[in-house]
Amino acid sequence: MMKRIGILTSGGDCQGLNAAIRGVAKGLYQEFGKDVEIYGIKDGYKGLIFGEYKLMKPNDFSGILTLGGTLLGTSRQPFKTMRVIDENSVDKVKGMKDNYKKMKLDCLVILGGNGTQKTANLLREEGLNVIHLPKTIDNDIWGTDITFGFHSAVEIATNVIDCIHTTATSHGRVFIVEVMGHKVGWLTLSAGIAGGADVILLPEIPYDIDKVAKCLNDRIKAGKKFSILAVAEGAISKQEAALSKKERKKARENFPHPSIVYRIAEELAGKVDNEIRVCVPGHFQRGGSPCAYDRVLCTRLGATAARYIKEKTFGVMVGMVNGQCVPVPLQDVAGKLKSVPVDCDEIKAARQIGISFGD
Amino acid sequence: MMKRIGILTSGGDCQGLNAAIRGVAKGLYQEFGKDVEIYGIKDGYKGLIFGEYKLMKPNDFSGILTLGGTLLGTSRQPFKTMRVIDENSVDKVKGMKDNYKKMKLDCLVILGGNGTQKTANLLREEGLNVIHLPKTIDNDIWGTDITFGFHSAVEIATNVIDCIHTTATSHGRVFIVEVMGHKVGWLTLSAGIAGGADVILLPEIPYDIDKVAKCLNDRIKAGKKFSILAVAEGAISKQEAALSKKERKKARENFPHPSIVYRIAEELAGKVDNEIRVCVPGHFQRGGSPCAYDRVLCTRLGATAARYIKEKTFGVMVGMVNGQCVPVPLQDVAGKLKSVPVDCDEIKAARQIGISFGD
Amino acid sequence: MMKRIGILTSGGDCQGLNAAIRGVAKGLYQEFGKDVEIYGIKDGYKGLIFGEYKLMKPNDFSGILTLGGTLLGTSRQPFKTMRVIDENSVDKVKGMKDNYKKMKLDCLVILGGNGTQKTANLLREEGLNVIHLPKTIDNDIWGTDITFGFHSAVEIATNVIDCIHTTATSHGRVFIVEVMGHKVGWLTLSAGIAGGADVILLPEIPYDIDKVAKCLNDRIKAGKKFSILAVAEGAISKQEAALSKKERKKARENFPHPSIVYRIAEELAGKVDNEIRVCVPGHFQRGGSPCAYDRVLCTRLGATAARYIKEKTFGVMVGMVNGQCVPVPLQDVAGKLKSVPVDCDEIKAARQIGISFGD
Amino acid sequence: MMKRIGILTSGGDCQGLNAAIRGVAKGLYQEFGKDVEIYGIKDGYKGLIFGEYKLMKPNDFSGILTLGGTLLGTSRQPFKTMRVIDENSVDKVKGMKDNYKKMKLDCLVILGGNGTQKTANLLREEGLNVIHLPKTIDNDIWGTDITFGFHSAVEIATNVIDCIHTTATSHGRVFIVEVMGHKVGWLTLSAGIAGGADVILLPEIPYDIDKVAKCLNDRIKAGKKFSILAVAEGAISKQEAALSKKERKKARENFPHPSIVYRIAEELAGKVDNEIRVCVPGHFQRGGSPCAYDRVLCTRLGATAARYIKEKTFGVMVGMVNGQCVPVPLQDVAGKLKSVPVDCDEIKAARQIGISFGD
Repeated sequence: MMKRIGILTSGGDCQGLNAAIRGVAKGLYQEFGKDVEIYGIKDGYKGLIFGEYKLMKPNDFSGILTLGGTLLGTSRQPFKTMRVIDENSVDKVKGMKDNYKKMKLDCLVILGGNGTQKTANLLREEGLNVIHLPKTIDNDIWGTDITFGFHSAVEIATNVIDCIHTTATSHGRVFIVEVMGHKVGWLTLSAGIAGGADVILLPEIPYDIDKVAKCLNDRIKAGKKFSILAVAEGAISKQEAALSKKERKKARENFPHPSIVYRIAEELAGKVDNEIRVCVPGHFQRGGSPCAYDRVLCTRLGATAARYIKEKTFGVMVGMVNGQCVPVPLQDVAGKLKSVPVDCDEIKAARQIGISFGD
Repeated sequence: MMKRIGILTSGGDCQGLNAAIRGVAKGLYQEFGKDVEIYGIKDGYKGLIFGEYKLMKPNDFSGILTLGGTLLGTSRQPFKTMRVIDENSVDKVKGMKDNYKKMKLDCLVILGGNGTQKTANLLREEGLNVIHLPKTIDNDIWGTDITFGFHSAVEIATNVIDCIHTTATSHGRVFIVEVMGHKVGWLTLSAGIAGGADVILLPEIPYDIDKVAKCLNDRIKAGKKFSILAVAEGAISKQEAALSKKERKKARENFPHPSIVYRIAEELAGKVDNEIRVCVPGHFQRGGSPCAYDRVLCTRLGATAARYIKEKTFGVMVGMVNGQCVPVPLQDVAGKLKSVPVDCDEIKAARQIGISFGD
Repeated sequence: MMKRIGILTSGGDCQGLNAAIRGVAKGLYQEFGKDVEIYGIKDGYKGLIFGEYKLMKPNDFSGILTLGGTLLGTSRQPFKTMRVIDENSVDKVKGMKDNYKKMKLDCLVILGGNGTQKTANLLREEGLNVIHLPKTIDNDIWGTDITFGFHSAVEIATNVIDCIHTTATSHGRVFIVEVMGHKVGWLTLSAGIAGGADVILLPEIPYDIDKVAKCLNDRIKAGKKFSILAVAEGAISKQEAALSKKERKKARENFPHPSIVYRIAEELAGKVDNEIRVCVPGHFQRGGSPCAYDRVLCTRLGATAARYIKEKTFGVMVGMVNGQCVPVPLQDVAGKLKSVPVDCDEIKAARQIGISFGD
Repeated sequence: MMKRIGILTSGGDCQGLNAAIRGVAKGLYQEFGKDVEIYGIKDGYKGLIFGEYKLMKPNDFSGILTLGGTLLGTSRQPFKTMRVIDENSVDKVKGMKDNYKKMKLDCLVILGGNGTQKTANLLREEGLNVIHLPKTIDNDIWGTDITFGFHSAVEIATNVIDCIHTTATSHGRVFIVEVMGHKVGWLTLSAGIAGGADVILLPEIPYDIDKVAKCLNDRIKAGKKFSILAVAEGAISKQEAALSKKERKKARENFPHPSIVYRIAEELAGKVDNEIRVCVPGHFQRGGSPCAYDRVLCTRLGATAARYIKEKTFGVMVGMVNGQCVPVPLQDVAGKLKSVPVDCDEIKAARQIGISFGD
């Protein structure tokens, strides 16, 4: 009997989405041969709500392994941004359930990050067969050692720091590079170590600006005329960390610039002698072709999703744990954020070679 | 008799400085064998003024071909930023002359951009033997078809646009990428064409924001959900272009953000339906290893400088004209800015394939 | 009235073919709007002979700027390899003429190298409207300063030499890297200089193995334990150069390995103390995404071809001369090989920094 | 009391050696401050045997994070190639012990692969304090999930396959790419999956040339005109696998070319219609700057080695197991080869998306 499988990508795009889609599709065609139809749902959950999708052909999945972005399009997950539907979320879920049934799907494969995963779990609770693949450059999904996109973004952010290094040394400057990562520090930690940063500021370790300044001044005294700071976009000072969420938001509004590195540059300006410059590579970190690591990861996750469909293992995320693909029940992980443990092996190693975390 | 040659790098660093230094040095050692001493002057003209330099050994120039930045260090040219010396510029020039004589130099090889070149010419007028090598990612030096650093920066900026492309298409967004280039548009023009930008805004062609908006909306109507704008850091609107320099400066101060792309994003916000995002890669464009093109260019310019020293051809820039290294008298070119001619072949080609310049 | 334009790519593929095709197509759609039909001819002249082509749509040319290879497919030019048609070449030309007429083409745009250009000229003599775009990583086409693909291949070959450098220095070895370039040395010369090679062997400068060995031994004596040789696939020894073409072919047959670097390694083995290794990156040099330089070049050449069609400038190659796109009559250039002049500026610069050409 | 630590790198060089050396050194300077002296031993065990080493300064370890190769130099491990010392291995070991004592070392940190590890274990048995860091692009060291160099080499080999892809599709050819990896298939497996290979041949899965040919012909029948084979340098046919080691060696000698891909090309020539080409990137895969993944890995392994020295944890390899650095007793792992398990998760995933292993 014909299997009908839907695929959608939701949330911010990143490297490897197409590689993972290809893994799922090639896996399904191998498992079911001509007895499977794959439906590409357009622009994330939005396409499921409004019934925008199309039947894909095997050729649609050829030559996409190296392609950045997502051929299906994406959108932010529905419960925050899709104001076209009323505030009561029931309607949207109903829309998705209705279309799932109308399309007669046997399973919906959902590629996305934390928000996407929460919605996937909601659909599971509503009785839909779903499988989730963990996509994000932030690596902040609970239940999997690694998410796809992460290592590609690390390569890009590291390359930026490498390039900044040569100009920092030539001019004897302090350079502050803002690295993505949303509310967690995984990306900054890896790129900071890989790029040879002298200071790494993470959301998980609130910084003391005086300690940061001292570290920079100590370097100058030691004859090192330049310094590199890798700062997570979610970095936070000790003062801010002591505030309530509301107070913190208000305090941020007083500083006009959206990027925290400008504020840190200002805070440091009076305390450090060297010239200070900032660099905010931004969305660039999420784009382009996935690195080899991510292509292998995506292919494995995708192929495993196809196997789970064959085996009727639904309601799970395909996680990568200790090098093995495993089914992780969505109910156990949905909504949980995986922060960097402050005493983890990687941070210990970074401290051991003299990197300061500003604490 | 022993030849004594000084080398300095001045102004913003860029890719290829070390490759060019290596070209000069290897060329000198070939020409003069053991009868030459090369002095590396520290941190640009500053080192010449204050007599900070050291005798280099052949090994110092090994393995530096691929290295970004400058091993000699650099600083902004003296007449703007070196306030330690009094406002009367004579002192600084005197300091440089005195050290040149004290060091008993036969020639001073100076690597730098426009400002550097002006000072080089001043030293020539004062009777010093100087040779200038045209360094800048901006490609804005009169008298040479190409400057080193330019093509390396084009590769980086193009790579940024490539990566932005995948996220722009996935989300159906307008992305505005700010490209370096100081007051001219060479870098943006090349990176914009190479990156497949839909709109390119240059200092040489003041833009009309309504025409830019129309172009973006036309694309949306034609079913293209995303657009890429490559905007030079020196881009300027028609209204601004009509202002006096003073008025213009004042108008800019009213907008808090240092990067013009934020202002353009704001101007477009009401006029275009799509979500708009900006990306400012910044200094990153000037760093890292030079591309192969620049390494060959630097080697040729450097080796030619060594030959000119042998032939006592002083007071010139080594220019690259129609594929040949030629001596360009500094008095003919110092202080002249090479802008993009608005009717040049490259802009014509860009228009022919439908790229809008917002005019 | 509807214009009907054919495009084909012939000969070995290289970087930038799709970028050039896109330039032609976007240029044509801008010039003629809906009044143009573009026919993609399959697999080079073969598709023209056998009438295999299809009408392209504007969307076919979207997103191909960065893509390696050619979406039209290619084949070696017909007069050497297409044995399906009889030895009398008239038939093939007739086939092409017939299909050109059957397709009611106004012009045929032909992308290819030297062999392709010869056939293009033949078609011109037969009365067809043709425009040729100079494609080859070899840069050996007469009448243009540069061909597309060249700089992309230089970047790759240089990157290979860079990587070989680190292993050569670590082990203190002699490494011989074979660089493509067919019968000329442009690619090897540029990659050799950019990669910091110590010895460069080109077809244009027959080498003396004893001089090569001496250069390597001199380096060892000077304390440099490693050396890099960049060798063109068409490199030739002085002994071989003295032979007739027939004798030379026979001599080569005695050496079993297809790559000349193996023979050179054998010749050096007795004469040099260090361990010798070879590296033959091969076809890899022709693949992947074009570099920014080539993308701009291809866009300009393609857009200019579209303009020439509008202006009815036929029977020409679009050449790049001193930075300008110019029409070069095919009859003036077809069949002429552009070798590296042995006294050119670039070779002089290479010698000036101590690179040996083994002569 | 002053600690005296020796470091050496042995065996084939690879990416990340300098990053790991830097990790050890920075870790030691942090742990012991001025109370540590680090001795760089030259060219691997050779330098230890002959007492060639030098005291390093902190500055020697600056700026080397991104550098390929090893600043200490390397050589093949002593028991195979160092014929200058007599055939009885005792002498060499004695030489190493004597110099270790003469240098008054507290610990010797040894970076290398399998052979290096065996010798390290021998030195441990002789009573020396040793710590081993697992270096190899082959990933074939027992007791650690990953070795450094591996992921950098995967990126390069994948990039080669990417480039070959575009030429394979344009010409409709079969391309056979030889990937390094010594006697195991890890590198080929990852690069093959990441590069989108259609066939992957590994030493662990002897191939049947008829099955390989069938797979290629099936693709042609399905309208796919090109195919990519990723072949490990250690790949082996079923016939060969049935031979004794001696017979196998003899059989190989009958085929002149050192690279197995030439033989496979010949075997396929009569059985497959398409043109066949080979590509042997070779040593290039081991060179150049380490990828971000390897830089983090090396930093962690190096910093952990410094900590083990502080804690007097000797006689171990620093392994990476399930994301944690752990001490692995050398006696448990020395001499054990880690092959790819034929039923591992990664091979299963590859088969699930239709990749053939020729079996």
